[in-house]
Amino acid sequence: MSIRIGIVGYGNLARGVESAIRQNSDLELVAVFTRRDPENVKIRTENVPVLNVKDIADWKDKIDVLVLGGGSATDLPKQTPEFASMFNVVDSFDTHARIPEHFANVDAAAKKAGKVGIISVGWDPGMFSLMRMVSDAVLPEGKHYTFWGRGVSQGHSDAIRRIPGVVDARQYTVPVEETVSQIRGGATPELTARQMHTRECYVVAEEGADKAEIERQIKEMPNYFADYDTTVNFISKEELDKNHAGLPHGGFVLRSGVTGWEKEHKHIVEYNLKLDSNPEFTGSVLAAYARAAYKLNQEGQSGCKTIFDIAPAYLSNKSGEELRHSLL
Amino acid sequence: MSIRIGIVGYGNLARGVESAIRQNSDLELVAVFTRRDPENVKIRTENVPVLNVKDIADWKDKIDVLVLGGGSATDLPKQTPEFASMFNVVDSFDTHARIPEHFANVDAAAKKAGKVGIISVGWDPGMFSLMRMVSDAVLPEGKHYTFWGRGVSQGHSDAIRRIPGVVDARQYTVPVEETVSQIRGGATPELTARQMHTRECYVVAEEGADKAEIERQIKEMPNYFADYDTTVNFISKEELDKNHAGLPHGGFVLRSGVTGWEKEHKHIVEYNLKLDSNPEFTGSVLAAYARAAYKLNQEGQSGCKTIFDIAPAYLSNKSGEELRHSLL
Repeated sequence: MSIRIGIVGYGNLARGVESAIRQNSDLELVAVFTRRDPENVKIRTENVPVLNVKDIADWKDKIDVLVLGGGSATDLPKQTPEFASMFNVVDSFDTHARIPEHFANVDAAAKKAGKVGIISVGWDPGMFSLMRMVSDAVLPEGKHYTFWGRGVSQGHSDAIRRIPGVVDARQYTVPVEETVSQIRGGATPELTARQMHTRECYVVAEEGADKAEIERQIKEMPNYFADYDTTVNFISKEELDKNHAGLPHGGFVLRSGVTGWEKEHKHIVEYNLKLDSNPEFTGSVLAAYARAAYKLNQEGQSGCKTIFDIAPAYLSNKSGEELRHSLL
Repeated sequence: MSIRIGIVGYGNLARGVESAIRQNSDLELVAVFTRRDPENVKIRTENVPVLNVKDIADWKDKIDVLVLGGGSATDLPKQTPEFASMFNVVDSFDTHARIPEHFANVDAAAKKAGKVGIISVGWDPGMFSLMRMVSDAVLPEGKHYTFWGRGVSQGHSDAIRRIPGVVDARQYTVPVEETVSQIRGGATPELTARQMHTRECYVVAEEGADKAEIERQIKEMPNYFADYDTTVNFISKEELDKNHAGLPHGGFVLRSGVTGWEKEHKHIVEYNLKLDSNPEFTGSVLAAYARAAYKLNQEGQSGCKTIFDIAPAYLSNKSGEELRHSLL
């Protein structure tokens, strides 16, 4: 018997989850819920209904885990607690400062309903968090560094698109190679944002737009660009569509720590991701944690959990015996 | 209140555990047990007794977790189940083929005693297993590769030392760079042992020994060397002690997997360790899992567990709130 999965939303991330379900024989997509007119949403999985999210309560007993494809700004803070009162849920909430509040809301709703809610799943937060946490525990005296890229930051691309005169844009976050080499070589510097990443922008401007002004607005944008060395390249829409259509991403977490009676030995732990498709990899992580949510709930557990609270074996379709045999 | 740790043995690994305990304020070393005459074993931690392992049962109520520093060939198959009948235990059992049997023995003893036994802890098996398992669950369609080195293999060094005419030896396992580049670039070849690693040997021969014969015996040794491109360098004892005294190691686990509706996107996950001291890093992992064994047992759990069965948060001295705040 398969684990019955529902997906809320049908954007890039939701489609990544849909593909991931197809790659896991124990997972079955049973419904997609949308705020749009369901008639206008065509999904790729055959014979699976698209429904209005308003009718989701009707599916209470027909779905084992609901995966939320929405965004952290407005969708998830509301949806995850709301749906955790009816379903086991998994989300990719990534607004770091609001995690305590989100955790508390999901925990209360899920506990009351006897459901499991897993939040902040993906690669960062997610796999990168796992690496940071485990290597912090193993090497308590040390420093960790997180680098993102080379990859497309959708948030930064959106920020450029909101500038008047911009038709479309793509922003790549790029680790500063010199800094990375230092750390891989054992250094443990204190770093500014500028020393860690550069930002490469590819911008399509309206005809006749003031490109110098667009470039100034990008480079001076607080939080997003002002603290980084930013380069702006104006290109045609055709070039953007041809060379920058994908959503590759990746990055790496490094922990540099010491051991020994006199702390005389150095250890460097690196976890590195090179992803052709950010939303599909994130969707694949969500699918694995959907399995975990189901298994935990089957054991009688409830409440909000993060990646830190879940034993790795729950992510897998394989038995404990099989895991010990083939992967230990 | 600290978690009271006992260590069995006082070789390289046990000393690594001793150092790690010193780096963790919630862990306290309370006793070291040895098969040698305790009078002849001087440990580095002050005011901690060294005792004969025969008297270990007297410490039943004075130790929260016992960490076993012994070897997989003969020590652990006997000791881990035996001591799991009295203590929470953690070992670094690494004889892969015998894990099912060892797991069953430890599980029976630990369950009967109401204790937790965590086996096969370290970096491989251990951290590498965790990476293989998690990335297998996230990217179910793919291949994984484990490379070791550049680092000292103690088993292979020992094998060379057993050859007549050899005074001392050090063997480095080295990944084949060309193969690694292929895989990092996205290829997923089937590989022989020879294509993955080379073996570099530094050998001190007795005066007048037949070096050609020693070299032949090394290169033709089944399992250890015959399946690899092996180089043998004869050096002086002084040179060995000067340039090859350390026990550095490391390596990396790669998973190359695909996602997407047509499996059109590639993802490469790499976990990479560069370790100045193999036994100290392994000891640090054992210390973190000793903490986990204690916490799990405090919650009423018992039986044998591996890294796959333990939620990451148990490894840490930090609260759930603190972990979510600082590392998620």
